[in-house]
Amino acid sequence: MADTSSYDLVVIGGGPAGYAGAIRAGQLGKKVACVEMERAGGTCLNWGCIPSKALLKSAELYQKMLHADDFGFNVGSIDVDFPKVVERSRSVANQMAKGIEFLFKKNKVDYIVGQAQINVPGMVELISGDRKGEYLSTKNILIATGCRARMLPGLTKDGKQVMTAREILDRRDLPKSCIVMGAGAIGMEFAYFLNAFGSDVTVVEMMDRVLPVEDDDVSKFVEKSFKKQGLKVMTGTKAENITVADGKVTLDAMTGDKTEKLEAESLLVAIGVQANTDKLLSNRVKLEMHRNYVKVDAHYRTSVKGIYAAGDIIGPPWLAHVATYEAVQAVNGMFDHGEPRPYVRFPGCTYCQPQVASIGMTERDVKAKELKYKVGKFPFTASGKAVAAMESEGFVKLIVSEPEGEILGAHITGAEATELIAEYALGMELEATWEEIHGTIHAHPTLSEALMEAAAATHNEAIHI
Amino acid sequence: MADTSSYDLVVIGGGPAGYAGAIRAGQLGKKVACVEMERAGGTCLNWGCIPSKALLKSAELYQKMLHADDFGFNVGSIDVDFPKVVERSRSVANQMAKGIEFLFKKNKVDYIVGQAQINVPGMVELISGDRKGEYLSTKNILIATGCRARMLPGLTKDGKQVMTAREILDRRDLPKSCIVMGAGAIGMEFAYFLNAFGSDVTVVEMMDRVLPVEDDDVSKFVEKSFKKQGLKVMTGTKAENITVADGKVTLDAMTGDKTEKLEAESLLVAIGVQANTDKLLSNRVKLEMHRNYVKVDAHYRTSVKGIYAAGDIIGPPWLAHVATYEAVQAVNGMFDHGEPRPYVRFPGCTYCQPQVASIGMTERDVKAKELKYKVGKFPFTASGKAVAAMESEGFVKLIVSEPEGEILGAHITGAEATELIAEYALGMELEATWEEIHGTIHAHPTLSEALMEAAAATHNEAIHI
Repeated sequence: MADTSSYDLVVIGGGPAGYAGAIRAGQLGKKVACVEMERAGGTCLNWGCIPSKALLKSAELYQKMLHADDFGFNVGSIDVDFPKVVERSRSVANQMAKGIEFLFKKNKVDYIVGQAQINVPGMVELISGDRKGEYLSTKNILIATGCRARMLPGLTKDGKQVMTAREILDRRDLPKSCIVMGAGAIGMEFAYFLNAFGSDVTVVEMMDRVLPVEDDDVSKFVEKSFKKQGLKVMTGTKAENITVADGKVTLDAMTGDKTEKLEAESLLVAIGVQANTDKLLSNRVKLEMHRNYVKVDAHYRTSVKGIYAAGDIIGPPWLAHVATYEAVQAVNGMFDHGEPRPYVRFPGCTYCQPQVASIGMTERDVKAKELKYKVGKFPFTASGKAVAAMESEGFVKLIVSEPEGEILGAHITGAEATELIAEYALGMELEATWEEIHGTIHAHPTLSEALMEAAAATHNEAIHI
Repeated sequence: MADTSSYDLVVIGGGPAGYAGAIRAGQLGKKVACVEMERAGGTCLNWGCIPSKALLKSAELYQKMLHADDFGFNVGSIDVDFPKVVERSRSVANQMAKGIEFLFKKNKVDYIVGQAQINVPGMVELISGDRKGEYLSTKNILIATGCRARMLPGLTKDGKQVMTAREILDRRDLPKSCIVMGAGAIGMEFAYFLNAFGSDVTVVEMMDRVLPVEDDDVSKFVEKSFKKQGLKVMTGTKAENITVADGKVTLDAMTGDKTEKLEAESLLVAIGVQANTDKLLSNRVKLEMHRNYVKVDAHYRTSVKGIYAAGDIIGPPWLAHVATYEAVQAVNGMFDHGEPRPYVRFPGCTYCQPQVASIGMTERDVKAKELKYKVGKFPFTASGKAVAAMESEGFVKLIVSEPEGEILGAHITGAEATELIAEYALGMELEATWEEIHGTIHAHPTLSEALMEAAAATHNEAIHI
């Protein structure tokens, strides 16, 4: 062990858990290093949430321009410079990654590019990168290595015919046709994106509906909208006999006892994630695992003293905002800055159009638990702002407990759903009742009024429906 | 008194106070009439908030299209069919007005088009319209006649050279140049709109800054943005010697001891409102007034038993959402459905770009009251969602009390500010502390994260700055 440096904390992984944990430790005045294999910001910032939102924004604008005559414009021609669309998303990712690198400096975080391996507790070895071979001695370790897209067994990503989200984000041409396997958030976002730019898209989902974690009403609504937009959506469907050859991908889509042969230029596999644990531990370190994820207690402590873990690597829900929250809590806890808290609830968002956002239980969940509840629903067609903006597709659905009237679950689909959900999230945090939401004056005209009206609607007091 | 009908409530005025009050009474099973001179929905829906939002949305899209190359598009030509832009906004207003008429039917509200006069308490006379001469006997009266735009003394609106918001909303051509007098919400919205479509716009404001009710930081930021967008903005400026002749309007703009001659095709007067009380009362009814507004107590009761008032007619803040709230409270109170509540706070919104939204006190207010406070600020340049959407102009500024940490005031400028403010509004209603907002998991990537980060920033715990 030649070169060693001594840290209060070494964070392994520079994604939303890792960088946030490292920055938080820096804020607390700790000596901290963050070791990241690729680039600060991790998958989310470089190959996930952020660049995909840039692509989706371009797709939305393109769709708006195609329908600009509705707004009073005659647009001559619109040429899509697809490489430039992708370039912009890459440059947004690049800009944000630089931002994280700046924050590392500002908070005195040593940012090390390379792969890290926990050699023994208290000692991290750099096993790749410029500083390969160095050892970092540290009081605490935070594992935040995250997850990567899962591939179907037997298939190999080639970035052209077979892709995950990562490859499609870096692809400079639009596949003429694409089969999207998996109708979760990622699958639905790329399906929307590809279709918006004119690709011929088929979504194949094993479960009986798109966005299977969402409320049934929302799944139904979005599926209908997707079909209206021209996508083919197959639910309750298994893909078998996938073959990749001759510039095309083919598969058998089996729905019940019917089989349909699908063919496309490309296949996007969006069937979930797997943990990044490769070479994370030397064979001198054994951590208790839960399936393939690192097991932690309520304070984000692993089974080995001084080693913590947070983010996707500790298992679902695999969401950046949950990962950040966990890492900040873990770091607060390890440095005695308050009791770390596990998350109680979190919003989930899908950024296709119509957007989807939710928090808490679905009506299906509530029924399964045999809870007493009331539902309030408010359609955006009744919102003046939505109509004025020509964005009246969608609704707000609020489920409140009976008789307490507190939020059990909230489900929004439509314009800005992903922004609007924040109000309900805060409401749940503060145990707001439907009356308190209804009694809060909401600015007119806004989409947010629909959240107030849905609250009122749980007790038939909505004015505009 | 020939024909009389007997009501539990007659509402005079069909705007956001009037129609909401009438619908609420209908929900409570009361026999109610709503008398409206023009069209259901009132100024807000027909000649204010709603059609202006339609125009602004078109302006935003036009600006986006002009810069579409930033997103990766080459747009051949964009012809603005200005009459169609305006037509769309009229048809949105028409659609929403029909919606109110539908809600009247659904809630069994008798909708009467005409002008109403309170003849004596308990008796309303229809003094214009198809049913002119009829009397409505009623247990209660709710005055909700609202306000109209104020004109400068000596000037006459002609819809072409001299306009208020009402006239410009119905104008089918774009003035080549326009002086906007008044940099409040309405003035700033139309100034943005006209400039966005290529009109040469000068904003003249008597106060020392634009949006004088907003926080100083916001006013400064928006003024700077407006100037960057090409508008001329003159603050601390009085307009004198206004002349309207020869197809042009001229005036002397006096800033301190400097005078500049301004000339434009049109003048938009956006200097505030005046109460609609013409012919409201017969000479047998005397109501206590406060300046020109109807005076009410905390239960929205006027000085005459059985006569209530709500909305703009009882005075500032002249906001649709406050009007609706007041009317619903008034009606709940008059029919013993809970204690009516005065409003405690309300959001204020301006829909120019960058948007502005706020609630509670400005920093100036807080200082004047010598309160102890902390400020947290988060710029949208540090928001991944904002950067991805190319909407990173603006910031969130949160002012919290010390040591309680509750929200004293919140100020947002930038994309979707008018939607985002709802979260802080609910937070204030529930007496949320900065820690509770910071501790609420916000979806990533969203603009709403900036509200969480601003809360964290009040105590230097923001991750992304």
